[in-house]
Amino acid sequence: MAFDKKHILGLGELSAEEIKVILDTAESMKEISTRDVKKVPTLKGKTVVNLFFEPSTRTRSSFEIAEKRLSADVLNFSTSQSSVVKGESLVDTARNFEAMGASIMVIRHGMSGAPFILAREIGASVINAGDGSHEHPSQALIDIFTIREKKGRIEGLDVLIVGDILNSRVARSNIFGLRKLGANVRIVGPATIVPEYFSEMGAEIFHSLEHAIENVDVVIMLRVQSERKTLEYFPSLREYSGLYGLTREKLKLAKKDVIVMHPGPINRGVELTSEIADDPGSVILEQVANGIAVRMAMIYLVALGEGL
Amino acid sequence: MAFDKKHILGLGELSAEEIKVILDTAESMKEISTRDVKKVPTLKGKTVVNLFFEPSTRTRSSFEIAEKRLSADVLNFSTSQSSVVKGESLVDTARNFEAMGASIMVIRHGMSGAPFILAREIGASVINAGDGSHEHPSQALIDIFTIREKKGRIEGLDVLIVGDILNSRVARSNIFGLRKLGANVRIVGPATIVPEYFSEMGAEIFHSLEHAIENVDVVIMLRVQSERKTLEYFPSLREYSGLYGLTREKLKLAKKDVIVMHPGPINRGVELTSEIADDPGSVILEQVANGIAVRMAMIYLVALGEGL
Amino acid sequence: MAFDKKHILGLGELSAEEIKVILDTAESMKEISTRDVKKVPTLKGKTVVNLFFEPSTRTRSSFEIAEKRLSADVLNFSTSQSSVVKGESLVDTARNFEAMGASIMVIRHGMSGAPFILAREIGASVINAGDGSHEHPSQALIDIFTIREKKGRIEGLDVLIVGDILNSRVARSNIFGLRKLGANVRIVGPATIVPEYFSEMGAEIFHSLEHAIENVDVVIMLRVQSERKTLEYFPSLREYSGLYGLTREKLKLAKKDVIVMHPGPINRGVELTSEIADDPGSVILEQVANGIAVRMAMIYLVALGEGL
Repeated sequence: MAFDKKHILGLGELSAEEIKVILDTAESMKEISTRDVKKVPTLKGKTVVNLFFEPSTRTRSSFEIAEKRLSADVLNFSTSQSSVVKGESLVDTARNFEAMGASIMVIRHGMSGAPFILAREIGASVINAGDGSHEHPSQALIDIFTIREKKGRIEGLDVLIVGDILNSRVARSNIFGLRKLGANVRIVGPATIVPEYFSEMGAEIFHSLEHAIENVDVVIMLRVQSERKTLEYFPSLREYSGLYGLTREKLKLAKKDVIVMHPGPINRGVELTSEIADDPGSVILEQVANGIAVRMAMIYLVALGEGL
Repeated sequence: MAFDKKHILGLGELSAEEIKVILDTAESMKEISTRDVKKVPTLKGKTVVNLFFEPSTRTRSSFEIAEKRLSADVLNFSTSQSSVVKGESLVDTARNFEAMGASIMVIRHGMSGAPFILAREIGASVINAGDGSHEHPSQALIDIFTIREKKGRIEGLDVLIVGDILNSRVARSNIFGLRKLGANVRIVGPATIVPEYFSEMGAEIFHSLEHAIENVDVVIMLRVQSERKTLEYFPSLREYSGLYGLTREKLKLAKKDVIVMHPGPINRGVELTSEIADDPGSVILEQVANGIAVRMAMIYLVALGEGL
Repeated sequence: MAFDKKHILGLGELSAEEIKVILDTAESMKEISTRDVKKVPTLKGKTVVNLFFEPSTRTRSSFEIAEKRLSADVLNFSTSQSSVVKGESLVDTARNFEAMGASIMVIRHGMSGAPFILAREIGASVINAGDGSHEHPSQALIDIFTIREKKGRIEGLDVLIVGDILNSRVARSNIFGLRKLGANVRIVGPATIVPEYFSEMGAEIFHSLEHAIENVDVVIMLRVQSERKTLEYFPSLREYSGLYGLTREKLKLAKKDVIVMHPGPINRGVELTSEIADDPGSVILEQVANGIAVRMAMIYLVALGEGL
């Protein structure tokens, strides 16, 4: 099956088939990273712009490495150096990069929906690198890729997502993707940040981690986002980590070969203890490694779709 | 005719012949941007440093893309990460990059004349990317290139520049270049920011936009520079845009095939209405696109002059 | 002799033989910078990350140019854009870059010892680009390389280091390296910043510049580090430069063919007068130029040691 999307904006928009094409392509890309020269000339002479309106180390770096391994010319734009201060609109900024010859724009923006607006208004391909509390498709694709690699399948698995579901774009994208590929998704947290309406997305709602974790194959821990709002819902970090932090004891309630994931950066001692972070069952650094392959696949596929 | 300048510091310094060589070279460069692999190996193994002492998204990005399309190694230096905070002088900073092997320095500086000082003190080639309120040669060359592309010639055209002439390096460079190539240049704005002495540069001075725009071939709108000083001369933005903002009505007084230009970033509703910005007569995004070709030509020519 | 170190953390850790291998390799690298295409494909498809937790223009730029001349893919990470604000530990940050495929990390950190921690905890090669007031091996190697180039040897030379020895990582690394290669090292400054215990490193201690400079072959001026602490020890800059600033008069007491060095950026009129900075005996810009070759050698050798 061919991939003919021009943009990758969210897993809500992708079919199960399209998600599988991305995962399969990422497998081929992963092979490139094992070579002596970790580079292919696919995007030579093409310009990719990373438009980051929110600070980010890991996501931007991961995209940048992926782009360079595809031999693209990379331009990084972050708000601090930007003419956004001069009052230019997002669309005008993007149109300018397009006029300069950018073929693909990778955008992170604090406003949910910003990449969708761009995709409608400009001619270049748009990849969503995280928009507000809406979607973070590359992270969810990495998570699903890593689960499939470890478990051999997605269908029928029990996957638990722990934490601030309400404010998490990672959770939202994962629920979309995992459900489409046939996994059972549980979400757990206090009612304030795991509201009932998430059941409409096909997730099973829990409020006790001990109940939720029973017999699951995969645990995805979300980040406590102090810069966004998780902590408004808790008296203190200690309260949060007591109730929803992952310890070895709680993890024993899951399946024996459970894997633990986290989108990073982790807060040791908050979402999970150091012994779990560094445990062989934790695949957190493998997620990071797979990030390069998955992002190479995303960029490659939208470029291909555009005949670049 | 050969181009044997080592630096490009301003249009005040270039002859009509030299300007034409740059425009003709930019035409060849523009062809490269239409290729599948938008890259030539001309500057492979050469280092170009972008020394930006004023924030800038578009000019720096445009130079960076141009440099990468010529296969140069690019180093970006902006004040925030700089040892300028450590009290090092501009010349010492530049000499250091030269010692590290930089062949070309593209400099933007808030002080009028800074690139001229560098050109005198260092061995590398210097390209002025905007100095104070003095010159902005690459922008004017882009404007002139775009006019020539649209109108087939420069000589005999009536070109109107609207706005804060006094504080605009874009205006100054354009007046120099357009006059040298035989255009008639009108400038319009209140007497405070369009002072009489600009007539010595060969520009015809107007204070009413309705009078100035009559029958012109080209309108160049300048940016209201809130970070510099335009607004010190007006009670409010509303006042400015009422008198000197471009509307469809005022534009009807110009020639029928008039083109509208703006160096960007535009303030929609201030210098021009959105309907004009997005009108087919507006060539603002074509200016941005031509920016890559013109800057490739500038870099190529100073490199050639140096036998790089 | 082969170089089989995986990391370069400090001159305290390197043998005289290993230092010589780096210097000899830097000589070959220097030849590359004289070529028309100043680039070799040695690190093509390898990723080098510059992890800078302290601001730095020249050191980072110098490493970046060196990496690009070896054809590496370069990723710059500086604190301002970092998830350090999000509370991630240094080791977790580095492990992430390693998971993304970085083979070599060049790290500058305000904490003495930080690169040593990294080297112990991660699998990638680590190069120390300055840690607290501990070591700055690349700068000392540059200094020693430049001395050897100018004087033909290191053994038996009298080298004077002037200034804030206590807080200077440059001084510490130079004392280690120069002593190992057989130079006599003198250090001078007030007792508060040139404490007695430095004699245990093999340096001869002076408090008067006029006495210390007598008959030396090389003078290395240290930077007055206002951002660190030099000035806490002096009533004023004027006091410092009166006692320990280098003037032509004081320099006459050294050997006739003395060379003057400074790691930069220089404070003209503080550590040395402008006439000395720009004198033929000053090799400050040659140090900068040699910086590229020495850093290329360091990166090349750790990569080679890793079979990259």
